[in-house]
Amino acid sequence: MIFSLLKDRDAQFFIMYASSKNANFRYATKFWIPDPAFYMIGDDGTELLVVSEMEKRRAEKESRVREIASLNDLGFYEKIKEGKNAKDALTETYIELLKTHHARKILVPDDFPAFLYEKLAQNFDVEVVENPYADMRKVKTPEEIEHIKDVSNAIIGAFQFFLKLLEKERDSETLRNSVEAHLYERGYLAQDTIIAGKASSAYPHDIGHGRVEGHVIFDIFPGSKKTGYHSDFTRTVVIEKNQEIEDMLKACIEAKNTAISMVKEGINGEDIHFRVCDILESYGYRTTRQKSREGFIHSTGHGVGLEVHEKPRIFDGGEELKAGMVITVEPGLYYEKVGGVRVEDTVVVKKSGSEILTKFEDYVRLGR
Amino acid sequence: MIFSLLKDRDAQFFIMYASSKNANFRYATKFWIPDPAFYMIGDDGTELLVVSEMEKRRAEKESRVREIASLNDLGFYEKIKEGKNAKDALTETYIELLKTHHARKILVPDDFPAFLYEKLAQNFDVEVVENPYADMRKVKTPEEIEHIKDVSNAIIGAFQFFLKLLEKERDSETLRNSVEAHLYERGYLAQDTIIAGKASSAYPHDIGHGRVEGHVIFDIFPGSKKTGYHSDFTRTVVIEKNQEIEDMLKACIEAKNTAISMVKEGINGEDIHFRVCDILESYGYRTTRQKSREGFIHSTGHGVGLEVHEKPRIFDGGEELKAGMVITVEPGLYYEKVGGVRVEDTVVVKKSGSEILTKFEDYVRLGR
Repeated sequence: MIFSLLKDRDAQFFIMYASSKNANFRYATKFWIPDPAFYMIGDDGTELLVVSEMEKRRAEKESRVREIASLNDLGFYEKIKEGKNAKDALTETYIELLKTHHARKILVPDDFPAFLYEKLAQNFDVEVVENPYADMRKVKTPEEIEHIKDVSNAIIGAFQFFLKLLEKERDSETLRNSVEAHLYERGYLAQDTIIAGKASSAYPHDIGHGRVEGHVIFDIFPGSKKTGYHSDFTRTVVIEKNQEIEDMLKACIEAKNTAISMVKEGINGEDIHFRVCDILESYGYRTTRQKSREGFIHSTGHGVGLEVHEKPRIFDGGEELKAGMVITVEPGLYYEKVGGVRVEDTVVVKKSGSEILTKFEDYVRLGR
Repeated sequence: MIFSLLKDRDAQFFIMYASSKNANFRYATKFWIPDPAFYMIGDDGTELLVVSEMEKRRAEKESRVREIASLNDLGFYEKIKEGKNAKDALTETYIELLKTHHARKILVPDDFPAFLYEKLAQNFDVEVVENPYADMRKVKTPEEIEHIKDVSNAIIGAFQFFLKLLEKERDSETLRNSVEAHLYERGYLAQDTIIAGKASSAYPHDIGHGRVEGHVIFDIFPGSKKTGYHSDFTRTVVIEKNQEIEDMLKACIEAKNTAISMVKEGINGEDIHFRVCDILESYGYRTTRQKSREGFIHSTGHGVGLEVHEKPRIFDGGEELKAGMVITVEPGLYYEKVGGVRVEDTVVVKKSGSEILTKFEDYVRLGR
């Protein structure tokens, strides 16, 4: 994919400057590094990872990239000694490196930092492209799917733990801390877990505050501390009877399950999204197609992997699904006066169907 | 600070495009948003935050920025309907927005994404600058200091918990997981906590592996899950008697306390660093001034806040301290054959002195 992109754009190198918090960088290098490092891959198969002196030995041991250089190896400290500031010394080091490799045209990803882009563009023909690794990450290997399964199982355990807690504890913050600590102890990092009672639930990204009443959206998307892979799961737990909420929830459950039954290789994500809209509209709810500010106001889903949100989009302008993709299906309905509901599963796309990784009953009522 | 920068560079706007994982964006907007959003501030005081439709109401409620627009408000969706891809629609929306505001020259920070930089540079004069918010973040408000105090107290609790554990548990990974889980349950996220026994302790960034023996560096820098603020603390715990280590530790304790006694408004960070070097050199240890690879090989400290490492540097080329800054003081000594030691406190700079936020005895011996 990278080689055809380089050929296509008549470029010699694709480069990234990022830390491993950047999923594409981590995927490309298979290396965990907390500070930004430089990665280049050439049309002739050359690959080089440049790290600080301190990280060099570890990179040689742990990274997939075979050729490792330290900034020192490339003359960075000589420039510092000449009195240059760190940023100028850094950009000059990389420019010299690329010149040594006879680069004329270079591709950089969308999120490449401006300070380096600006200097490279003064020396080379630089084109900004969508990161090809983001496309390569869409279809998962069996090993990656195992990682996502592993987190999915931890999620189901955490949800069961949450349901027990909810019988006696109703403070959002306490619930969130307890659930996240439960996962953390087991090796999973969950952040911004949504535990949103009636009042908070009308806003899809409100993580929830204060006392949980009426019903609660539980939306969790932890990553494994070891592998970095995520999974994503939502259930709405009904605490007190409320016909409006139950009707909304039933419509979302029907939409989710119909959508999941459509998932297989070859179907377009947009068709799944529009089917979800059809179902919700048939019950009188408004959707993204009416550009409403209430109702179903987000996409049906997204890919999941090293990032919680990654390609493909299950939305307007979606793409054809391929076996091995891992996606979420998550219809929701939000009304300021009533509150919000959402149900979500993470599923693997297969040749002729799909596999749900986050199996749990859809309708959850407290105390049943 | 931003207005003078804009005036200085003859620019009309400073803009950021980032999520709240970016400390400067979070600081500027006082808003937590997981996906990238657009922030602009003008030389006339105009301020605007552009978010997705879904985040608009929450942004209006929670963000410090008064004027909020959604992408839809600015015509994004019309461009999508015309068949433009999301990225082109996005960049065009922002370019039109800036033109409406009569922008001619725009400042962007170092880490501004290349895809947007490239398009803006085709329409405006764009200059890459160090993010002015990074300078504004240096002096903390009383509220920010309270947040850092809160984490500092949690750290002291975690260290006491660690000391008890250490009496029966000596595996670095187990100790790290237990301490980090202890904090997580209480609402604090500690990552890469250094629990480094004799063998690992010689490398300042080695988090420690295997069995802890001889002595152990405990270095922790959690952030509050709620506020995002960090604190930073290190103690070296002596497990077995070792004269070389104890001598190094005593020198570091003296250097730390002398340095802290110098901290007050008006002193330069460089003077503090050089005083630390003086003391360590007086005991025969090598320091950064000799460019040695052993001895005192890092800076004396750094600012702490929304990031663990932020401005100011307490090092060569440091700057004058101001009341309200929160900094670390952390002399350490590292010798490959002997191991390393370090002691560190986080302190608030005051008009005529300082306040230590991480109060704990300096010399810690196991079992005392």
